[in-house]
Amino acid sequence: MEERKIITSTQNALVKHVAQLKEKSRLRKKTGQFVIEGIRELELAVAGGYVLETLFICEEILENGASQILPFAKETIQISASVYEKLAHRGGTEGVLAIAKAKSHALENIKLTTGNPLILVAEAPEKPGNIGALLRTADAANIDAVIIADPKSDLYNPNIVRSSVGCVFTNTIAMGTTEEAISFLKNKGISIFCAALTASKNYVEATLTGPTAIVMGTEATGLSPSWLSNAKENLIIPMQGHIDSLNVSVSAAILIFEAKRQRGF
Amino acid sequence: MEERKIITSTQNALVKHVAQLKEKSRLRKKTGQFVIEGIRELELAVAGGYVLETLFICEEILENGASQILPFAKETIQISASVYEKLAHRGGTEGVLAIAKAKSHALENIKLTTGNPLILVAEAPEKPGNIGALLRTADAANIDAVIIADPKSDLYNPNIVRSSVGCVFTNTIAMGTTEEAISFLKNKGISIFCAALTASKNYVEATLTGPTAIVMGTEATGLSPSWLSNAKENLIIPMQGHIDSLNVSVSAAILIFEAKRQRGF
Repeated sequence: MEERKIITSTQNALVKHVAQLKEKSRLRKKTGQFVIEGIRELELAVAGGYVLETLFICEEILENGASQILPFAKETIQISASVYEKLAHRGGTEGVLAIAKAKSHALENIKLTTGNPLILVAEAPEKPGNIGALLRTADAANIDAVIIADPKSDLYNPNIVRSSVGCVFTNTIAMGTTEEAISFLKNKGISIFCAALTASKNYVEATLTGPTAIVMGTEATGLSPSWLSNAKENLIIPMQGHIDSLNVSVSAAILIFEAKRQRGF
Repeated sequence: MEERKIITSTQNALVKHVAQLKEKSRLRKKTGQFVIEGIRELELAVAGGYVLETLFICEEILENGASQILPFAKETIQISASVYEKLAHRGGTEGVLAIAKAKSHALENIKLTTGNPLILVAEAPEKPGNIGALLRTADAANIDAVIIADPKSDLYNPNIVRSSVGCVFTNTIAMGTTEEAISFLKNKGISIFCAALTASKNYVEATLTGPTAIVMGTEATGLSPSWLSNAKENLIIPMQGHIDSLNVSVSAAILIFEAKRQRGF
């Protein structure tokens, strides 16, 4: 068996690099690298075609040795518990993390495999937890692509990776400006349906059986005028309570699963 | 104008009491008191009939003096910025909080005002954030009552109050054991529909137009056998992705809004 490199110092340059990759969006962009933690997330990343440049294993914590992931890592390094603790979000429960190579998320890379796609668009989503929740819903509904328009953060923010429980790897995700996203959808003949508190049409009265993009704004400010004016229809989820209380990921799920219902799943 | 009591010491006994009420579920149960922060939350609590025993105002932070809430407080005390900072979750953005009186959440207190109620049941929900999200959805859908069966925490955990954005005050909420909740629903002639990953019936094929309780388990372990065996039907939301990825509050929203759709909102 091949001898593995071992790192035991938290001052090691590579260890510091991993810590910085987790913190600094700019470094992620510059290097095209990001960090993945956890067995399930690593499995989903491998399944999604991500390249694991360096896999770090803490054998003091990890029981089965991550044997299912090892073959996919270009390099495997053993780390001590103290090094793992410095790097891990999760207080040492899994014992494995990796430096992975980011993918391109250009709109032109979206390859639609159906003539009748269902697409989710989120404009300028801010909270990593909301983006993660949207990606979980998109995975469950087998959405053909998720477009993040005018993104406020990079996709590989550790809080997005974590809150998506790996769905950041299972979805087809593209990013671009709002104008680019609208052009993309129009060129493909995909109808735009915006969720808007100012709309008057109940979402259950819309026909969502054709090529459809469901577009969500932020909870604070909603969608920009470009989306609303380029929509086939703007839709409202009737809220009958004391406050306009639906979370953006909940609203998105209601609209997406109404489309799924109309399309017969 | 009446002279207001002023507290400037973080060592004051009442200040310490507030801090402990936020931390200790046992103290909340013993005293029947809990803490509310923020103008909107306080307004919703007042609208929901909650009694504000002591209102604390930090005039250095609060601009308009909380004039809309003052008339509803039995007592108002002015606090210094340092005291407010010790007590507030939110890093000092609002400048107002209160000790409020808990309500009874016995099942027998539920007063249904319709012969055709729509009820949400959550069994043993664990994460405060999930409970808060369920309550937001229940508010938006104008659910007749929310029942928390076999609760794992008290309702007035500060993280539940906060994540519900005040919907903990706008909903009719009851708590009891699973057996009590099942008896209550059966006595009222309300049909039980359980969300279950093991079910085979698609939720869109169920008829949710009569008196209906939608019952959600935890993401980790699902529902207990009592619920599943007492259900009129067990329902599944078809998931077609890589993982069973839907969050419990998202699943609940999909089922509730399908019921709303069938009932014509």
